[in-house]
Amino acid sequence: MTTTVGAPTTYDLGPARALSCRECGHQIPLAPEFACAECFGPLEVAYSFGRIRRADIEAGPKSIWRYRDLLPVPSDVDSHPNTQPGLTRLVKADRLAAALGVKSLWVKDDTGNPTHSFKDRVVAVALAAARQLGFRVLACPSTGNLANATAAAAARAGWESVVLIPSSLERAKILTTAVYDGALIAVEGNYDDVNRLATELAAEHEDWAFVNVNVRPYYAEGSKTLAYEIAEQLGWRVPDQVVVPIASGAQLTKVDKGFRELGELGLVEQTPYRVFGAQATGCSPVSAAYKAGHDVVQPVRPDTIARSLAIGAPADGPYVLDVVNRTKGAIEDVSDEEVVEGIRLLARTEGIFTETAGGVTVATAKKLIETGKLDPEAETVLLITGDGLKTLDAIENHVGPRATVPPTTAAVHKALGF
Amino acid sequence: MTTTVGAPTTYDLGPARALSCRECGHQIPLAPEFACAECFGPLEVAYSFGRIRRADIEAGPKSIWRYRDLLPVPSDVDSHPNTQPGLTRLVKADRLAAALGVKSLWVKDDTGNPTHSFKDRVVAVALAAARQLGFRVLACPSTGNLANATAAAAARAGWESVVLIPSSLERAKILTTAVYDGALIAVEGNYDDVNRLATELAAEHEDWAFVNVNVRPYYAEGSKTLAYEIAEQLGWRVPDQVVVPIASGAQLTKVDKGFRELGELGLVEQTPYRVFGAQATGCSPVSAAYKAGHDVVQPVRPDTIARSLAIGAPADGPYVLDVVNRTKGAIEDVSDEEVVEGIRLLARTEGIFTETAGGVTVATAKKLIETGKLDPEAETVLLITGDGLKTLDAIENHVGPRATVPPTTAAVHKALGF
Ligand SMILES: Cc1ncc(COP(=O)(O)O)c(C=O)c1O
Ligand SMILES: Cc1ncc(COP(=O)(O)O)c(C=O)c1O
Ligand SMILES: [Zn+2]
Ligand SMILES: [Zn+2]
Repeated sequence: MTTTVGAPTTYDLGPARALSCRECGHQIPLAPEFACAECFGPLEVAYSFGRIRRADIEAGPKSIWRYRDLLPVPSDVDSHPNTQPGLTRLVKADRLAAALGVKSLWVKDDTGNPTHSFKDRVVAVALAAARQLGFRVLACPSTGNLANATAAAAARAGWESVVLIPSSLERAKILTTAVYDGALIAVEGNYDDVNRLATELAAEHEDWAFVNVNVRPYYAEGSKTLAYEIAEQLGWRVPDQVVVPIASGAQLTKVDKGFRELGELGLVEQTPYRVFGAQATGCSPVSAAYKAGHDVVQPVRPDTIARSLAIGAPADGPYVLDVVNRTKGAIEDVSDEEVVEGIRLLARTEGIFTETAGGVTVATAKKLIETGKLDPEAETVLLITGDGLKTLDAIENHVGPRATVPPTTAAVHKALGF
Repeated sequence: MTTTVGAPTTYDLGPARALSCRECGHQIPLAPEFACAECFGPLEVAYSFGRIRRADIEAGPKSIWRYRDLLPVPSDVDSHPNTQPGLTRLVKADRLAAALGVKSLWVKDDTGNPTHSFKDRVVAVALAAARQLGFRVLACPSTGNLANATAAAAARAGWESVVLIPSSLERAKILTTAVYDGALIAVEGNYDDVNRLATELAAEHEDWAFVNVNVRPYYAEGSKTLAYEIAEQLGWRVPDQVVVPIASGAQLTKVDKGFRELGELGLVEQTPYRVFGAQATGCSPVSAAYKAGHDVVQPVRPDTIARSLAIGAPADGPYVLDVVNRTKGAIEDVSDEEVVEGIRLLARTEGIFTETAGGVTVATAKKLIETGKLDPEAETVLLITGDGLKTLDAIENHVGPRATVPPTTAAVHKALGF
């Protein structure tokens, strides 16, 4: 699949064989590194996969560990305490499809994960790799969901955690991180400030695994499992179109990588697919670059209710542009009003309550359909990556009880307009 | 398994054959009924099961529908739009076990359900049965979780819903019901008032399926799936001890029924098991009756932070007492402070964030161990039935960031006490 370095590795990370620079291709042995020594480009995991069969996967654990032979984790990964994320529902969304005017639509509902976002996937892989690499503390800078997932995974494993968040985060995301009793630090600043701080701390603390900083090459691979699950749940095929929300952009690039690997390994037929990206207009640097035809991304200062996507300087921005252009997808962005409408539309039609990030995905899909960029005849999957319970502020001025009444049938009938 | 009535039924409800009175044993054909015409006792579903094999279940859907041949639903149940609940994680809880001083402990984490509580199970079965029975509207009185599950399931199915809640409910539970856009009515009164109101409305509206009132015999069967899953996930065996929270008591009695059926059908060995019940002291009518050695339950006026369990007049109270006494379990209750401690203990040790009901279960287990009622040497399963994100008020004065700091490494080090 990917060229491997000659030297034997000392770390057991399953099929992973090396770290390879995304910019210059330089390879180094597996190590707790994240930036290329030659050009400072981001490092990515390179593999040498064995023979992988559908039946073996299907007989595996009911979690992302059924794909362990495709991830940078040891084969006994599931015997260490972990949160067992993944294998979330793929929902056939006929009512949403009718509302949007498309033929065949699916929703990948990642709110079913242990801390109710896709971040449990990446953190589980990061923790497993960090254990092998000799780290002792699990850490992260986060816009919220990653904080939840990191603090929970560390608690489950009996590790210490250090979690850094912008102090302006939603109350729900703060409390649901603090409850796991690690070291939660609120930082005066936005996510990009917190991220910079984490990079400095990572340099000072050799035994701290900042999942999305110094362990990022391993961590990011966890998002491939979204692609694997979608393909398996569709009966081992890749959908025509997929819509993915973008913050740092890691998830989108790894969903593409996952689909590609399945095709190369013969686990699915190599059919063409298109990857679409979704952003909130209040933080849409990747969408702006896409529309302007640039191949680099200009940082912005975020201002949107979609706080989990509010990364103004997205690390994987240029790679997102590569994927979207190569697969003939597109990137679009939507207003905060559209985000709320997206949340409500998904709830009303499919009974799935997503957070603002999911509202971005639904609203972007709607816009892509209306503008003819997304083919309404082709099969489409929307990635719903986070939970509505964490962003109640977004809907609280829009929904509520129809009425408050005394306990009589007459009062209820009146409230219902009988 | 159970005697069946002679008359052929007109409804296709799978293996269900009749409704049988729990008090006098009188049987009637399957119908949209819930109370015995002879004695007003509660009706329960009676079955005639076919041959059921482990392998068929294991090859079934990754939801409660893998047990469809054990439920009052048609065999094509999964082809109708539904929320696909169940098959939630059974977590080996070694760190919690160490904290509690027991040998072998499991947590059934039902927060992974679509609306993050076990209520998705019962509502899915109620909806499936209601469809067969000719209802057109899904309704309920609720302490919160049932409201979420009912509104979501109705939205997904394209049914109208009417959901009645006490107006004092947690903000999260109100908003996360309203978002599905059914008719949500807040009622001035406590749950018992709302429940009475629902019974009156059910009598007036023949096409409204109040899941836990006039469809209750079918609805309640959904909780059997908790027992089925636990047994399957343990490798087809029943645990020695199980701790179950009690509101109406339906869940506890059905977990027992599920274990019994598995034994009778030869799907597991018929080993003895003990069922323990958990209540909050501020609403502990069943615990009080158990301790006093009564076989009826004296209603109380609830006053506890465990609002999802705040049913002062529990419909299944006497049957809970039967189960607990027959299996040599016990019932215990815990203070609101202990509930919060239970929530925090589970989060800290296992990375699972439960709502107040789960705090009741953990704290009760602790107390049962300390008082020698629960055998620390025997294998125990705790039922964690609801999600911490819905009851943030319970923890907000207890947890939070360690510090709020400017974005410098020095400030972080100081906050961490370096
Ligand atoms: C719910 C949710 N969806 C999507 C994303 C985007 O992830 P990425 O940074 O990989 O683009 C995030 C990031 O925090 C998120 O919280
Ligand atoms: C989270 C949770 N657990 C347990 C229960 C108890 O259920 P039952 O009424 O079947 O005893 C409820 C009831 O609402 C609940 O919401
Ligand atoms: Zn390089
Ligand atoms: Zn009777």
